[in-house]
Amino acid sequence: MMAEKLANIGVVGMAVMGKNLALNIESRGFTVGIYNRSAEKTDKVMQDHSEKKLIPSHTIEEFVNSLEKPRRILLMVKAGKPTDAVIDELLPLLDKGDILIDGGNTNFHDTMARNARLDESGINFIGMGVSGGELGALQGPSLMPGGQKAAYDLVAPILEQISAKAPQDGKDCVTYIGPNGAGHYVKMVHNGIEYGDEELIDESYNIMRNVAGLSVDEMADIFKEWNEGELDSYLIEITADILTRKDDLGSDKSKPIVDMILDRGNNKGTGKWSSEDALNIQVPQSVITEAVYARYISMMKNERVEASKTLAGPKGDVELGDKKELVEKIRQALFFSKIMSYAQGFEQLRVASETYKWDLKFGELAQIWRAGCIIRARFLQNITDAFDKKPDLTNLLLDDYFKDIAAKYQESVRDVVALAVKAGVPVPGFSAAITYYDSYRAEVLPANLLQAQRDYFGAHTYERTDREGNFHYPWYEEQ
Amino acid sequence: MMAEKLANIGVVGMAVMGKNLALNIESRGFTVGIYNRSAEKTDKVMQDHSEKKLIPSHTIEEFVNSLEKPRRILLMVKAGKPTDAVIDELLPLLDKGDILIDGGNTNFHDTMARNARLDESGINFIGMGVSGGELGALQGPSLMPGGQKAAYDLVAPILEQISAKAPQDGKDCVTYIGPNGAGHYVKMVHNGIEYGDEELIDESYNIMRNVAGLSVDEMADIFKEWNEGELDSYLIEITADILTRKDDLGSDKSKPIVDMILDRGNNKGTGKWSSEDALNIQVPQSVITEAVYARYISMMKNERVEASKTLAGPKGDVELGDKKELVEKIRQALFFSKIMSYAQGFEQLRVASETYKWDLKFGELAQIWRAGCIIRARFLQNITDAFDKKPDLTNLLLDDYFKDIAAKYQESVRDVVALAVKAGVPVPGFSAAITYYDSYRAEVLPANLLQAQRDYFGAHTYERTDREGNFHYPWYEEQ
Repeated sequence: MMAEKLANIGVVGMAVMGKNLALNIESRGFTVGIYNRSAEKTDKVMQDHSEKKLIPSHTIEEFVNSLEKPRRILLMVKAGKPTDAVIDELLPLLDKGDILIDGGNTNFHDTMARNARLDESGINFIGMGVSGGELGALQGPSLMPGGQKAAYDLVAPILEQISAKAPQDGKDCVTYIGPNGAGHYVKMVHNGIEYGDEELIDESYNIMRNVAGLSVDEMADIFKEWNEGELDSYLIEITADILTRKDDLGSDKSKPIVDMILDRGNNKGTGKWSSEDALNIQVPQSVITEAVYARYISMMKNERVEASKTLAGPKGDVELGDKKELVEKIRQALFFSKIMSYAQGFEQLRVASETYKWDLKFGELAQIWRAGCIIRARFLQNITDAFDKKPDLTNLLLDDYFKDIAAKYQESVRDVVALAVKAGVPVPGFSAAITYYDSYRAEVLPANLLQAQRDYFGAHTYERTDREGNFHYPWYEEQ
Repeated sequence: MMAEKLANIGVVGMAVMGKNLALNIESRGFTVGIYNRSAEKTDKVMQDHSEKKLIPSHTIEEFVNSLEKPRRILLMVKAGKPTDAVIDELLPLLDKGDILIDGGNTNFHDTMARNARLDESGINFIGMGVSGGELGALQGPSLMPGGQKAAYDLVAPILEQISAKAPQDGKDCVTYIGPNGAGHYVKMVHNGIEYGDEELIDESYNIMRNVAGLSVDEMADIFKEWNEGELDSYLIEITADILTRKDDLGSDKSKPIVDMILDRGNNKGTGKWSSEDALNIQVPQSVITEAVYARYISMMKNERVEASKTLAGPKGDVELGDKKELVEKIRQALFFSKIMSYAQGFEQLRVASETYKWDLKFGELAQIWRAGCIIRARFLQNITDAFDKKPDLTNLLLDDYFKDIAAKYQESVRDVVALAVKAGVPVPGFSAAITYYDSYRAEVLPANLLQAQRDYFGAHTYERTDREGNFHYPWYEEQ
């Protein structure tokens, strides 16, 4: 009986993300076709949600035929070869004008290639970043779709309804990002920024714990307080919550859970992709990169334990001063460093937009990150405002709001970095942040000496301060 | 008459590197066939060197026929498509067992692909890193050949003769690196290390200049003195020399040339490749990466000039203390940071060797870098010694020599980083170095909190300190 009606959209892949997005779409009044390679998962979803407007299919042909035209098909399968496998199966069954949406964590290079390949057959291909985890998928994620604009317009009515709404103005956390790989690229930078945010929070925790000697309970209160102010964000909020949680599995259930967790920070590669492309398009994206490296070095647990026994640390004690003041300095250092990380991330988006010809709208990106996604934060509104005021803003640091905070907080980050370095506690993110700030505001950097070196050993030529052109100094001639 | 004798080896590409290598080979008693796409360059070489045992060819067929078998052909053409074009031209003319050697700055991925492709036709393909610039090519470069071992053995007699000789023991600066892309990979890391060395020298110069207020003449003397000690290296030597040189083009010929050089640090991409692969194989290679980023930010000259007018720097003055002591601290910070950079570089080589199955001999790599190449330095002998003592050394920092220096110098690098950060002078390389040291020797890093965060928003699970396995905390259940 249900099969008489065609589905408005189909979802391939009934793992948790695919299932939750299907249920989210259905809950907005749409009929959803669902398909999974192994039929059991599809059957399980139908069992658990028999009252929903879902049309299950056990074959891909059946699935394609269950959809109204032009077909809208959301792929929620593993990135890489599994995605290609599904596309290859679908392709002969589709008609011109149909729309495939890849909602996986796909590398933007793959999305660009798939978009170009499918475009030749008249099939639209949207690469869509989805952030917010399982819960976000069900209740309202932040969505970053890129591909053919006309195809986006045909799926927008659905995407807008299922997306998160910003607390500031209720706006949908979805917008058209740009052609081909733009959506997955923006999601990749989002994830890189997420790595940076997490690293900066973890460094703050580490300084409070191992330099200032605060307890886990004290830190829980501090993060909670920070979440009331300009640092207000999902990641600070959950950090405060995490620090209140006790061990559920150990012999001593009064112990904080963080003290039972092994310090090996894993990763799924999207932060790395972000740094790789920053290197490639020549954007100094150091905070995120240091966050990626911090995860790598954390994974070398056995080596570190060995090294900790033989490598010497600082001998003397550091002067902490007033603890309350120190905590406030750490808060300022954290916010300052976060701003540097976002300045770098948006610089990367700006250069990527030029390099890949995407015409990204930077303010809108901050806008759709205000809810649903992992980096949702109050201060994203300030980024949107900055780009509203000046859509071609070169760097966030040149906006008054961010410039003023940097000016006010810079002394704190200098103090905190100096303190941590002298105490022997690593602060790669904070260091990269202040280093970036001081490099960016340096009228003159020592690259004059570098160019002399390069011209000396490799005849690479140098530019001059007093005239245009490339010059070679006669280093090997008699003086 | 000359054509009656066959050439021992052929060189394709008569730009300066190809020409100089051909002349170097000829000077060791070999007859060298030479060929260039445009005949004028070949003719020019013959004109300038009519007395040499060179056999010129104007067509590729003539060139191939001028070589004894198995043919040994050194390609010195532009990396990328030009290299493929020459290979495609040569391929139908070659016989099984012939040996192509690519001496360009080729990405190791390309070398791996070409080695595999040519191997199918029975043609040997050696990817060879060549360091030392134009002069090195002529007088004795450091050579890093990777490919089929049997093919290497057939070219070794020539490569050994043309290579640089180490001052310590007269040994050849060439050795068999490993299969397929190993040679170009090692050259890539060499170049990354070179970026790091240059950045660390430039930061030392910048602190002396802009924090300590030393003159260019004073710094020339300081670098000269540094070159007498453990920092003894080609790059320190030329830096000392550069700082003595006066402007040859400006109106005031008494001005140091460095003061006339624009601070835009260019790059040719190999440092970037090195960081990209470090990210890919999960090695925390932060000093080199910061050096790459430092070049990128230096290129943003116009933005920096604008930013320098509005972004606030530190207000107060810093306490310099005794200038002589400060200079010694900077020297120690430089050597300490250099050791961290090499520790990371050799860590990258170790992981790459496992990842790509190359069985690299780390001590030999340091050994063949002792002369001929840009990073030649006295302390490379200490690296060779370290791996001689312990061929499977995990990290240079675990060797007594390096561990002891790190212990002795760490306080200096802490002081210098704290001073520079408080003075507003960027030290990305020094910061990355001390940060790496403190991370590597940290028994516990704050990645426990990171894993809690990842488990909280993404159900990524966490490991525990008290037992094996992956666990998920019930974050969303009532406490």
